This record gives sequence, structure tokens and C-alpha cells, in this order.
Amino acid sequence: MFKRIITPRMGDTDAMRHITNTALPVWFEIARNELIEIFNPDYELTYKKWNLMLVHMDFNFIRQCYFGYDVEIRTYVTKIGKSSFTVLHEAWQNGKLRSNGKATMVYYDFIRQESNVIPEDIRIKLKEHFIGPEELDEKNRVEMKNNKKVNELDYVESDY
Amino acid sequence: MFKRIITPRMGDTDAMRHITNTALPVWFEIARNELIEIFNPDYELTYKKWNLMLVHMDFNFIRQCYFGYDVEIRTYVTKIGKSSFTVLHEAWQNGKLRSNGKATMVYYDFIRQESNVIPEDIRIKLKEHFIGPEELDEKNRVEMKNNKKVNELDYVESDY
Amino acid sequence: MFKRIITPRMGDTDAMRHITNTALPVWFEIARNELIEIFNPDYELTYKKWNLMLVHMDFNFIRQCYFGYDVEIRTYVTKIGKSSFTVLHEAWQNGKLRSNGKATMVYYDFIRQESNVIPEDIRIKLKEHFIGPEELDEKNRVEMKNNKKVNELDYVESDY
Amino acid sequence: MFKRIITPRMGDTDAMRHITNTALPVWFEIARNELIEIFNPDYELTYKKWNLMLVHMDFNFIRQCYFGYDVEIRTYVTKIGKSSFTVLHEAWQNGKLRSNGKATMVYYDFIRQESNVIPEDIRIKLKEHFIGPEELDEKNRVEMKNNKKVNELDYVESDY
Repeated sequence: MFKRIITPRMGDTDAMRHITNTALPVWFEIARNELIEIFNPDYELTYKKWNLMLVHMDFNFIRQCYFGYDVEIRTYVTKIGKSSFTVLHEAWQNGKLRSNGKATMVYYDFIRQESNVIPEDIRIKLKEHFIGPEELDEKNRVEMKNNKKVNELDYVESDY
Repeated sequence: MFKRIITPRMGDTDAMRHITNTALPVWFEIARNELIEIFNPDYELTYKKWNLMLVHMDFNFIRQCYFGYDVEIRTYVTKIGKSSFTVLHEAWQNGKLRSNGKATMVYYDFIRQESNVIPEDIRIKLKEHFIGPEELDEKNRVEMKNNKKVNELDYVESDY
Repeated sequence: MFKRIITPRMGDTDAMRHITNTALPVWFEIARNELIEIFNPDYELTYKKWNLMLVHMDFNFIRQCYFGYDVEIRTYVTKIGKSSFTVLHEAWQNGKLRSNGKATMVYYDFIRQESNVIPEDIRIKLKEHFIGPEELDEKNRVEMKNNKKVNELDYVESDY
Repeated sequence: MFKRIITPRMGDTDAMRHITNTALPVWFEIARNELIEIFNPDYELTYKKWNLMLVHMDFNFIRQCYFGYDVEIRTYVTKIGKSSFTVLHEAWQNGKLRSNGKATMVYYDFIRQESNVIPEDIRIKLKEHFIGPEELDEKNRVEMKNNKKVNELDYVESDY
């Protein structure tokens, strides 16, 4: 699992005083940098070298996320196929899972314009970050049960 | 179906000279303004009045999208539940479907913090934009077959 | 003068229920597409062809801008130098100037990595959009005086 | 001076394989969180409590900034007026100043809709981050002279 801390900015809020939905794709993309590094250790952005293409992403908004508290993005590998793999991102804030979502990337040759088989050495590195859905659900359930409640400013009751 | 034209900006491209993935959530959000208007005719952004909460969104990247050509976002209603509904967005450029994705929204009371049953008058308006998946697939297949090919700058062959 | 209509999206608002500051750089960038077209008629994004580099941009926030009303971006050329030029963008909403700002671009050779003299044919096209500061101020003063007041939802008085 | 580390994401690049201009307003906004905390220790986003309004921001693009290397945002206070103050942000990457820019904020009462005099205790905290323009220029000149050159991937020569 990769961890990355995001500090929400004022402009990430919207008129409901929550973090707006379009912030999540941006935060999850930053969290994929460590994965990019596995495939592109020198981050070279040329058609010859770059080798990842995003084909799908999804997002579930489970609880509101707020400005004023750091967000921890956790990234797991949940599926490793022949030439593609899927990651699961989670956004945690104040001890609670706020949003999650998947991203599927293809190992791709941008010049020949076709997918490639993921090499074994990369496959091994991806596997280090693998988690199954049941294991993750149980882990999160236990963690949220044990986390102390933080009194957040949620605005709605006192201020409409 | 709602239509909205988006003009990509230079900053929407990334180093692969395609439109970057995080542009799509922003484009699809603009395309929901007409739906917002059905639920919030005066666009009032208060907890008392605002009544829509996004709970899910997903995106499929089917073909690359480029800077220099307008994009047409088409929005259909694909599911109307008791207190939620799902829309399908498509991004078309030069006669080809480039990306699509769904967004599920809940009809929500932000003060009582619970969902509400979608009223009948709104339900009727949503139904006007309904399409089933098979009908849409067939419509798109025919349209793409009939559309003339546009010679796009796709960069990869001549310039790497 | 170039005109472009922008429809604010919900995610462009922030917790103060106004359009957030970082929306403006994005809106003004879209408004430069017509200028890009003068320099790059085919929008080709290669080092060989692309020829514009932004070196400065600034923004003044004069009046709040709101979700729910279209915004008109007006772009003028205010300075034409030997190898650079400056544009002024204005954001108008409901008959009032909300924000303005300048952007200075250099006519640039990305391979030789040096600026070039702007050719005469481009210079002529830029001049068509030129306006002086006093003329613009007077034009705007008259226009705002004559525009009818629109009753906007400005949220602050009734809803805190 | 406040420091904040930003990790560029793939989507922050544009087709020239540099960081795109509109990334900077977002990065500089995140860097203002520590200043917000001086004025709003509990980050409460209500009209009653929130007290800062941005009235101006500007950006100078001095050297290209790249994906693949962290960016350090440094924020100084450069002017403290009666009811407003100005900060200077700098973006450093691999030991070189890439961009800088100012932001002017007004200490503002959102309910009465007028500016307020900045209280003495806040003024003292702002002064701790003050620097004059000559002092900063000299400091940066010395620092850049002493910093070792990093061999960056700048793409232009070998890849067009």
C-alpha cells in the first residue's frame, strides 16, 4: 500500500462547504506517482519511454470530506492482468474512509499503439501492494471501529 | 439528451499530447447543469434549497481526445430510482465517441441529512432524457459508421 | 475583441458560495484559443510548430462572480512588442465587470529555445483586437451605467 | 517563510512536457493554508468567521518546471497594510527558482461586506514572515549560485 498526504485547499471546497467531487480524481492521480515510478523509474515523458494508459476510473463518495484537515490517500493493487492492472484508492480523513475508487491502467506501447505483457519484475513489485476485497473491508471495519471520533465542523446544523 | 460543447484548452493536454484524464470529470460536471436546473431552477446554493448529492461517478477512456477540436458532451438519463438517478455522459470529438461515464445522484435534504423520494414532476422531466443501453449502443454504432473520417493530428507516428 | 461564454460549474464555487479564484486562470486560458489560432492555425502541439510561451499572468478580483449565470470573457490586445504581446481578459456577468487580468506571451522557438520577432502578418491580426486602457475604461464605465441591475443571489445577507 | 512541498502529477504537464501555467495558482493557494491558519485557526468556513478575500494575484514564469521532481513552494509576506497584506510565493525545483508571484488579501467582514483593520496580534505573526525585495533577491542569487546543477529531462533537444 502506498500512502500520500493531501492538504485540501480552500478552492477544493464547493458551496456546500464540503470538498467538491472533482478534487478526488486529482488527488488519486497524485497517489499514482509511486506506481508510475515502478513502470517509469526516470519519469521520461516521451512516446518511446512512457508506457501507461488509463482506461477506466471510478469514484464512490461515502462520507463528506472537509477543508481544514489533511487527507490520507491509500493506494492498493487489486487486480493484475496480462497487460493491465487495477488499483484501488481510498481517501481517509480524521479516521474515516470518505471516498474510494478504482483506476485501471494498461501497459502500453505508444509508438506501436498496442498493449504489452507486463514484465515479471514489474509484476513482482505490483504484487507487494496487492490486497483482496474481503481482507480490505475487514481491515477498514476494524480500523474505523477503533479510531477515535474527531469533532469536525460539518456546518449543516448550525449554519444554513 | 442534453448537449454541451466544450472547447479544450492547452492546459487540458498532458505530455502525451492528448487530453488528460482529469479533464473529463470537469467536462461532465458542466454537462450536468441542465439537470441541476430541473431540481434547482434558481440554482440556489443553500442547505435549505440545494438537493443533489453525487455518490458515484465513473469514466471509460475509449479513444484519445485532442486539443484543437471541439468536444460535444451528450448526457442521457439511464436509471431513475426512488430517490436517486443515474446519468450517462459521452464525449464525442470529430464524429467519434472518445469517453463515456456515469454519475449517480441522490435527491437529498442537506438539513435533515437524508434522501427524499424524487417528486413526480421531476421524474417526468428526467424521463424525457431517458435511453436504454442497447438503444444507445445501436444509435452510436450507426452514427460512427456514417460519420466521415477526420484527419486528426495524433502526433505519435511522426513525432516522438 | 474576442468573446467566449463560460458556464460556471458547481465545482467552481467555494465555501463562500462565490466562484473560487483559481477558476479564472482556467477561464482566461480558454479565451486565448482564438489568439493561439492566429499563431498556430492548425493547433499543432510539437516543438517544431508550437510558438507561444506564457511569461506572466495577473488577475484582479473586482466583484464576486456567481454560479447559475453565464460569464462572458472578453479578450483584448493591449500591447504588441517586438517578440511579445500582452492581452487583457475581462470576466463579465449579469452586466458587470467581475474580474480582469493580463497575460504576456512570447513568440518563441521551442527548439532553438529563443524568442523570435513577431511576423508582420500576425502583427496585423493582433492589431485588430487592440484597445488602449483609457478607451476601455470609458467603454466599460458607460456600459455598466447603462446595464440593468440583475437581482443576483448573493447569499451573504440572508444566509450565514 | 512558509515551506510546502508539492509533487507534480502527470495531469499538471501539458503538450510541451512542462508543467502547465494553470498549475501554479493551485499550488500557491495550497501554500496559503498556513496564512489562513493565522487568521482562521479553526478553518471555519462561514460568513461569520471567514475573514480573507483575495483581490489580486500574479505569476511570473521564469524557467520551465517539470514532472518527476518535487517542487518547494516558499511563501513570504512582502507588504502589510492597514487592512490588507501581500504575500510572495516562489516555486523552486532542483535548486532553481522556476516561478514566482504575489497574492494580495483583504481582511474582510463577509456579513457587513467591508474590510477591517488587521489586529495587532495577527500583524505580529505576519511580520515574522516578512522579507524585503532586495534581501530576497540577494538571498536567491547566492542560493542559486551555490546549488549544484541537476541534469533534468528537458525533452526539447533530443525529442521533437
